[in-house]
Amino acid sequence: MDLSAEFKRWKAQCLSKADLSRKGSVDEDVLEIVQLLNGQEQFFTTSSCAGRIILLDGSINGSEVQKQNCCWLLVTHKACVKDDVTVALKKAKGDAVLKFEPLVLHVQCRQLQDAQILHSVAIDSGFRNSGITVGKRGKIMLAVRSTHGLEVPLSHQGKLMVTEEYINFLLKIANQKMEENKKRIERFYHCLQHALEKETVSTTSHPKEKVNTSYIRKKKRNPAKAHGKRVTEGNEKELENNDHDDPGISVTIFPEDY
Amino acid sequence: MDLSAEFKRWKAQCLSKADLSRKGSVDEDVLEIVQLLNGQEQFFTTSSCAGRIILLDGSINGSEVQKQNCCWLLVTHKACVKDDVTVALKKAKGDAVLKFEPLVLHVQCRQLQDAQILHSVAIDSGFRNSGITVGKRGKIMLAVRSTHGLEVPLSHQGKLMVTEEYINFLLKIANQKMEENKKRIERFYHCLQHALEKETVSTTSHPKEKVNTSYIRKKKRNPAKAHGKRVTEGNEKELENNDHDDPGISVTIFPEDY
Repeated sequence: MDLSAEFKRWKAQCLSKADLSRKGSVDEDVLEIVQLLNGQEQFFTTSSCAGRIILLDGSINGSEVQKQNCCWLLVTHKACVKDDVTVALKKAKGDAVLKFEPLVLHVQCRQLQDAQILHSVAIDSGFRNSGITVGKRGKIMLAVRSTHGLEVPLSHQGKLMVTEEYINFLLKIANQKMEENKKRIERFYHCLQHALEKETVSTTSHPKEKVNTSYIRKKKRNPAKAHGKRVTEGNEKELENNDHDDPGISVTIFPEDY
Repeated sequence: MDLSAEFKRWKAQCLSKADLSRKGSVDEDVLEIVQLLNGQEQFFTTSSCAGRIILLDGSINGSEVQKQNCCWLLVTHKACVKDDVTVALKKAKGDAVLKFEPLVLHVQCRQLQDAQILHSVAIDSGFRNSGITVGKRGKIMLAVRSTHGLEVPLSHQGKLMVTEEYINFLLKIANQKMEENKKRIERFYHCLQHALEKETVSTTSHPKEKVNTSYIRKKKRNPAKAHGKRVTEGNEKELENNDHDDPGISVTIFPEDY
């Protein structure tokens, strides 16, 4: 079976499966993107989380809180107030850690070129840790990830290690990150729409090179225009430091050159 | 010019450049890996950081501490004691944040297949957020990244928001993460050596498929054997939660299937 037919089979199989996540459904904030991608013949999503604030109670084990074995004291995809956390913390018996986890999205792509275009959209939207995986039997997957997290130990062996004032302060930051994550998700959706339109044009009327080139050159300037220079620069800086001069940001993708 | 000749040119160009990092040299803990990769004709490293504990003083700006504009109060690639941080915190005027940043390594690869093998090594060594970027003029880059960080706000507008006891507690965790990061770097080095040996064998004596298959099947079992089941399970769990069923971990890479 050729790869394209096999991709169709994979897609049908994956989309027919039950959602095995704890929540059992796609997060509201990422639903538009998931639907847009699954509506395209060259993509389908295999997992998604829009972003969440979680409070875990576990034992720090070789530097990792073992999330599988530990208790989830709190999970929210919305802004969080101090009382949510202080109430949840009362149940903590081990080492409770508050985390903000930004969007994670896995998209299987029909061809490497499709993954490249989606990767470019992700980088331009601020998801700087995104990357392609080429796996077994040619499965091409894009993982959309951000550098943009928070991981704060709050209690040790059931004993709270911080003040309520600190929790308040921390949640302001976590909620800000949640807001910024939502902005990036919206930016991703609009960049994706734009990229898909250009792709359609390119595959129907123009020679691919010219259209892809112009589309990417144009898109490279868009975030600054659309969202203010500071945000874009913020993303640049965050990247330069968190993920030193990642090629994903500095390169312009010309599928025809690959 | 064909891609292989162009790759040679890129490599010569890159390795002849001065090191533009703040430190101006490759971190000791990652030097062996950098030298091993740069000694292979199919790879060269474009940036690396072995992992560090940093204390930044900045203003939280749209949910991000702007690291470029803010002051670096402390940077260390070694374990850190409370006094290092408390002394550095005295200089904080804005919002100081303590971070542990694990290994980040960018490796340009000659062919996608080389990147796939290196990606498999990275995933098996515990660097679960690694991914491939295919860029301008066919540049293929692997970014080696871990899910394994820490980001803790400590002060607000120059005012310390936590106790010294908390800083002590936090540094124990940060130092544990530094240790675990070192173990993963060592694992990466040994998995890489093993993979390169198998590759050499495969390209000199055996049909590629068989050798790659056996090498990957064998390697998939190695971490558990070599480093104890708990560590491997820890990595699995960390991934399942931080980066939902990432294909990078569940798939076995058969370059010949791509």
